[in-house]
Amino acid sequence: MPTRPLRIALDVMGGDFAPAHELLGAVQALAELRRHGVEILLVGHRERVREVAQRFHVSLDRLPLLHAEEVITMEDDPTSAVRHKRNSSLVFSIELHARGEVDAVVSTGNTGAVVTAATLLLGKVSGVSRPTIGTLVPTERHHPSILLDVGANVDCKPRHFYEFALMGSVYARELLGIERPRVALLNIGEEESKGTSTLREAYRLLKSHCPNFIGNVEGRDILRGAADVVVCDGFVGNILLKFGESLAAAWRARLRSLASRDLWRRVFLWFFRPTLRRLLREFDYQSYGGVPLLGVRGVVIVGHGRSSPVAIRNMLLRAHEAIQRALVQRLEAALQVNPISA
Amino acid sequence: MPTRPLRIALDVMGGDFAPAHELLGAVQALAELRRHGVEILLVGHRERVREVAQRFHVSLDRLPLLHAEEVITMEDDPTSAVRHKRNSSLVFSIELHARGEVDAVVSTGNTGAVVTAATLLLGKVSGVSRPTIGTLVPTERHHPSILLDVGANVDCKPRHFYEFALMGSVYARELLGIERPRVALLNIGEEESKGTSTLREAYRLLKSHCPNFIGNVEGRDILRGAADVVVCDGFVGNILLKFGESLAAAWRARLRSLASRDLWRRVFLWFFRPTLRRLLREFDYQSYGGVPLLGVRGVVIVGHGRSSPVAIRNMLLRAHEAIQRALVQRLEAALQVNPISA
Repeated sequence: MPTRPLRIALDVMGGDFAPAHELLGAVQALAELRRHGVEILLVGHRERVREVAQRFHVSLDRLPLLHAEEVITMEDDPTSAVRHKRNSSLVFSIELHARGEVDAVVSTGNTGAVVTAATLLLGKVSGVSRPTIGTLVPTERHHPSILLDVGANVDCKPRHFYEFALMGSVYARELLGIERPRVALLNIGEEESKGTSTLREAYRLLKSHCPNFIGNVEGRDILRGAADVVVCDGFVGNILLKFGESLAAAWRARLRSLASRDLWRRVFLWFFRPTLRRLLREFDYQSYGGVPLLGVRGVVIVGHGRSSPVAIRNMLLRAHEAIQRALVQRLEAALQVNPISA
Repeated sequence: MPTRPLRIALDVMGGDFAPAHELLGAVQALAELRRHGVEILLVGHRERVREVAQRFHVSLDRLPLLHAEEVITMEDDPTSAVRHKRNSSLVFSIELHARGEVDAVVSTGNTGAVVTAATLLLGKVSGVSRPTIGTLVPTERHHPSILLDVGANVDCKPRHFYEFALMGSVYARELLGIERPRVALLNIGEEESKGTSTLREAYRLLKSHCPNFIGNVEGRDILRGAADVVVCDGFVGNILLKFGESLAAAWRARLRSLASRDLWRRVFLWFFRPTLRRLLREFDYQSYGGVPLLGVRGVVIVGHGRSSPVAIRNMLLRAHEAIQRALVQRLEAALQVNPISA
């Protein structure tokens, strides 16, 4: 039993609207987390945080703040940023986790830098060769699916697909509450013979070693929820993720242009804004509030740079859930039976 | 000058609703094509076509019908189907084109079989190593973009990306009316260093040899219309195409489920149906009515198996346009300056 309360470090300097959205999100999560005895530790530039807190009337009384002089920007090269900006809020947050001062980290900063820092400072879960980031996808079912890798693991080998599948399954079971998550490979046809030689090999590996592997699914099956865990390489995943992220904006633009041509339409759109907005929100990546970086020895929740305060609140709650569900230990247990030698 | 009128062969047995949708589409295109002196030649199973024509009160008077005993189904393996079903409507249609009896072929059949038969019987445009299929994507601009390859060319080399780029440019200029089409590579970041080594090499090739190459675009840039010609390998293209195709259905399902919970919403949706339908249609692949198979020595328009009569009508008109714009000759001219040795 730890002698200190559970603690989550929030990197407040990472996002596009930092530190305003981060502070507002922390305040929104505070009451619920405190009820569970969980503390939020802010990590960021002291003066800038205080200034913004004052402007937004956010009290920092119950939000202890640790100072970090530097900021890693979205434009920074991940590897060199992690190496040279050791005093950044991002690296410092993860260092606090590595030292056991906090039990989870939430960041909306440079994703590549979060992955690099976490892999370097926390280490990988044994049996994992590459940590992965997934994204939640809305489906016709009652729960979203998880699509992974979307973390830009470009050249994937069959064993990486296998590891993504296992990690996705643990996540779906522990955090989405799906008892026996159905796992599929994203491919250009259902037959085992489809796709690249790497995918065909991954298929064989999953078929013999992954519980609940249901075979290949195609692009059209994702939103139907044909599988709970959809596995692809980081290139395809990244293209799909960003395409998906652009949909809500594209629809909004089209609706607006249609409405502009007709008064009746304008009236109706105005009247039914909440319905449409709700619909669009489902397709909006950030409403899920980030997903964990899977495969590192710690709980790290990565969010979109444009995350809203609500999204950041959700990330903090998600981090707490991941701690409670012992996500890291469960990943470790699942990956222990890895049939492929490193 | 040909002594016969221009002719388009329509494979009426290929689609999921064949031959009904094909016949209805042919009738819809007939008046406009005849005004330009163009004939439609139906190719299909005589008895089945006559029976369906009767049921739908379609007069075959102005639609000459050539008999084909066999049908290639969607489940058939493309290569062996083309080899063994020589009497199929699909193969026969393309044979007619190869023999100079028709000037274009329209098919909603097994795409792989169309590509195989066309490559085999018509041959490739000189300078093209792999024929390609593109898809039109709605954008915020006044015209769609073309995304290619979506024809399942799985293992692409840099030179294939380059050829796709040139072919897409010719298509965009001649059939979308874009004077200087902007060409981009689909990648996971804008920097030249992003993606696989193949993509990096393709980038260099396009940079030095492709007019109007604007660099990499990401998944989020497609619907914005950041480029007029978006080039990717057939794996990524196929996943994106099918994901995109599933969007309209996913939205319809969500709208319906939202409506079912609330009378007001139901009224709204009913009233607003035409607008929403129009919006959904823009995201519906088949409304564009198929795209040409680019890089074969002939005009071949490939459509979705689920194509509606309107989509088939559009495919016939598109075929006529491609003949008029001398698409094949222009592709040949563009590919002549191919800087890479075969």
